[in-house]
Amino acid sequence: MNSVIDLQLQHRSIRKFKKEALSEEIVSKLVKAGQHAATSNYAQSYSIISITDPKKKKAIAEIGQQAHIAESGHLFIMLADQSRNASIVAKQGGSTNIFSSFDKFFIGATDAILAAQNIIIAAESLGLGGVILGCILNQVDELSTLLKLPPLVVPVLGISLGYPDQEPQLKPRMPEDLIHFENSYPQKDNISAQLEEYDNTVTEYYSARDSNKRFETFAQMVTDWSLQTNPGRLKMLGNIQKQDMAKF
Amino acid sequence: MNSVIDLQLQHRSIRKFKKEALSEEIVSKLVKAGQHAATSNYAQSYSIISITDPKKKKAIAEIGQQAHIAESGHLFIMLADQSRNASIVAKQGGSTNIFSSFDKFFIGATDAILAAQNIIIAAESLGLGGVILGCILNQVDELSTLLKLPPLVVPVLGISLGYPDQEPQLKPRMPEDLIHFENSYPQKDNISAQLEEYDNTVTEYYSARDSNKRFETFAQMVTDWSLQTNPGRLKMLGNIQKQDMAKF
Repeated sequence: MNSVIDLQLQHRSIRKFKKEALSEEIVSKLVKAGQHAATSNYAQSYSIISITDPKKKKAIAEIGQQAHIAESGHLFIMLADQSRNASIVAKQGGSTNIFSSFDKFFIGATDAILAAQNIIIAAESLGLGGVILGCILNQVDELSTLLKLPPLVVPVLGISLGYPDQEPQLKPRMPEDLIHFENSYPQKDNISAQLEEYDNTVTEYYSARDSNKRFETFAQMVTDWSLQTNPGRLKMLGNIQKQDMAKF
Repeated sequence: MNSVIDLQLQHRSIRKFKKEALSEEIVSKLVKAGQHAATSNYAQSYSIISITDPKKKKAIAEIGQQAHIAESGHLFIMLADQSRNASIVAKQGGSTNIFSSFDKFFIGATDAILAAQNIIIAAESLGLGGVILGCILNQVDELSTLLKLPPLVVPVLGISLGYPDQEPQLKPRMPEDLIHFENSYPQKDNISAQLEEYDNTVTEYYSARDSNKRFETFAQMVTDWSLQTNPGRLKMLGNIQKQDMAKF
């Protein structure tokens, strides 16, 4: 491997941070790294909001139902954003209708997520740690109001960053042949044996952890997860459409 | 900066490659780097298909309407995948209905896109280059048939990789204050002046390029882009729903 890939392979989610905020200089570096990810058609259909107001951080921690968010060293909210592009097109006298398509929503979301991964990697290269927050999507409507998002802008994920104050173990990923295929999706008949082996790996991982011994197998974890969807998440597409996106 | 961030800031899309396929060892390394990106709830709701069959590569180049895809050194298709999770839950006797929600589709897409950016960064750290292919979404139905995707699996993006045979210039990104905000989305009144400055930057970039002098300003480029949506893209959500995803 090399130092970049080594860094990637060391990734773990950090949710407990020292009481030290990121400097403006570091935040700006991270944004720059994010901006240099690929962007569809060079359109840069996303934006980033840094949440520095402690009240807003707390409100977002409540939306995400994760108290640690309020204690992060820095909190980014990544947005799919076609509002800026629509303004440009309107000024040129063009129709902005296309920006309400599912296609343009998904382009914005993809841009934002690619940038997010660059931000995480850049942060980890600076000795920081963090966690991607899908939980901000529990209430897309409330979060959109809190951040004063105009039409054609929706939240996609959050990134909580800081100086790590915990050292969690690496979570073992699936064996490659359960997730990486060649030329077509495989028939299902023979994944059971491989999954059983992975179940054992996950059991070992959980039993070696000092705390939070949550699940015995991967199968149990996934089954539990399938039963625990936040009701607000089932309003996500509707709430995105209220922001005038993903409508057709 | 540091060597990781320096690498990120040097990213440019590479679409022309030397006639040398990636070794299996390198492909495996890249998949491993991708797998170590964050994954929502540890569920790993995505899969990766490597396209090595020249006929399938050509078919995908036709779907994407980009001939260079057929000549890539390696082609990955990233998939949002809840099929594996649904199989596990079904085996445990649980209901799999939730996997057809928009929420679970978006979780799978996010997992796949985070992994994709890790793959690109890992590839670039090894001296490879590549380009993210949103264009595979022109015909989600055809691509799903070509790759024999079962229900609860949809393509999200492609990654074309190889040994670079071109040295494009860096595309200048927007100034930070057009894309990065604090605590709330800004009012629109004063972005015109900043956008005009960025228009000039883009004009300089295009006029300095040896080939493909396409647009004079960022505003013209975005306006042109708003007029050129592939008709198949407007069927994307419907095609995803045909795969039993994003239905509620």
